[in-house]
Amino acid sequence: MDARKGNPMDTYRVKPGEKIDLDQLNPGSTGAFKGEKEEALAATQKLNAQLEELQERLYAEHKHRLLVVLQGMDTSGKDGVIRSVFEGVNPQGVRVASFKVPTPAELDHDYLWRIHAQVPGRGEIVIFNRSHYEDVLVVRVHELVPEAVWGRRFEQINHFERMLADEGVTILKFFLHIDLDEQKQRFLDRLNDPAKQWKFNPGDLKERALWKAYQKAYEDVLEKTSTPWAPWYIVPANKKWYRNWVISTVLVEALKALEIKLPPVFSEEETASYRAQLAAE
Amino acid sequence: MDARKGNPMDTYRVKPGEKIDLDQLNPGSTGAFKGEKEEALAATQKLNAQLEELQERLYAEHKHRLLVVLQGMDTSGKDGVIRSVFEGVNPQGVRVASFKVPTPAELDHDYLWRIHAQVPGRGEIVIFNRSHYEDVLVVRVHELVPEAVWGRRFEQINHFERMLADEGVTILKFFLHIDLDEQKQRFLDRLNDPAKQWKFNPGDLKERALWKAYQKAYEDVLEKTSTPWAPWYIVPANKKWYRNWVISTVLVEALKALEIKLPPVFSEEETASYRAQLAAE
Repeated sequence: MDARKGNPMDTYRVKPGEKIDLDQLNPGSTGAFKGEKEEALAATQKLNAQLEELQERLYAEHKHRLLVVLQGMDTSGKDGVIRSVFEGVNPQGVRVASFKVPTPAELDHDYLWRIHAQVPGRGEIVIFNRSHYEDVLVVRVHELVPEAVWGRRFEQINHFERMLADEGVTILKFFLHIDLDEQKQRFLDRLNDPAKQWKFNPGDLKERALWKAYQKAYEDVLEKTSTPWAPWYIVPANKKWYRNWVISTVLVEALKALEIKLPPVFSEEETASYRAQLAAE
Repeated sequence: MDARKGNPMDTYRVKPGEKIDLDQLNPGSTGAFKGEKEEALAATQKLNAQLEELQERLYAEHKHRLLVVLQGMDTSGKDGVIRSVFEGVNPQGVRVASFKVPTPAELDHDYLWRIHAQVPGRGEIVIFNRSHYEDVLVVRVHELVPEAVWGRRFEQINHFERMLADEGVTILKFFLHIDLDEQKQRFLDRLNDPAKQWKFNPGDLKERALWKAYQKAYEDVLEKTSTPWAPWYIVPANKKWYRNWVISTVLVEALKALEIKLPPVFSEEETASYRAQLAAE
């Protein structure tokens, strides 16, 4: 499979400072996977099994921490990724932090306060469903604070993430890239299925009307906050199977790169002594 | 299958005030499942699929909350239950709270402080891996506070759980019942497998030496804190497949009993209007 030669995922990784024009990136692409959809599903399942095992080692080692940031427009698949990519993984080692409209108490603090409280501890994987990036996205598009305030946040975020990385957190950020047509179709799917209507929020149509402003805000995020220590990946997300395969691949590669070691075992003498204690009862 | 007639799980549910003698309860029992181990594994898998669907409805409804408390001696299978029973469930709706040795900040507060902070919110399932019950178990056995203090906690806990239940939390508590021989075997399995040695903690042998005191403390917990609003189940846990089947069955029955309704959908007029807005772009 070509996908294993070199690293096709590098295509989706944003280089620091790279200029991004989302209109030029095809959200329907499935280019890095050489094969049919069914093969991709099978490959993703295998990656899921690897992820499960790597998570167990991460948990056992109790040293590294992994932070996964998911961002994207409504219906882009943030919930779907959590369900599909992480569902097989032991819930004890994976935590999801969903950042919704801030509460009054949260608004009484700086925007990174509620974020910092949720970063992963040793051995833990934490998934951010939305994140501090909303404070340079929705906050910017709706002019909730002046540009002088949100404008300096890119650098603040880079410094914050750098500190986390220096302290041992692996950070991977995924922008789920869909287009207007795909979003329309997904809204219609929700409206047309009574079992899915609860997922549809009329307010989402107002956000959709601001699509261009959001894309511009996302381009700035991607250009200014993709760093060596906390890279952004732009994931073509019109096709769910492809989106899941890309993210699973990046996660498994990143965890493998940590070269996780199981904690030191006991010496033969120690082991024998514990066995003897049990036998002597 | 006989197991579906009446409710065999009632056998394991402790009646309020019931006298418990753990020595009289067989931890190796598999009595409520009429069939072979393989059939039980298949049945558990079906229950897992049901649990997955019920969790999604719980999350969508955003009303009920489920608190699952897991207690048991070392190696009794608390981690195993989390992995096996909940692994297929969407991590976004399930959260695990593990209560270890309290931190200095936690010790500066009452014993329910750290517990209260972790109870489930609407639509959420939270699993307590150990819990406030440690404050009448390890705390009692090691005499960390005088009897006058731990002795009044049973009633305090009942009041606390009653408040939670009144406010809409469904509470299910499971004591994973194994015997000394089974624990010895599981310790040896850990010692004999280098990939599992990290799970063995030499301090566990000291706790094992206090087995009788712990069993007595558990009997008091089961007798005094199994209430109509927060019942205890004594789960025969020597056989992992049986333990998982029992807990899955109780969980699925409890969630079904909530008669979870999906949130109200839009009227036909509303749906048509949203469709029109999308079409008119």
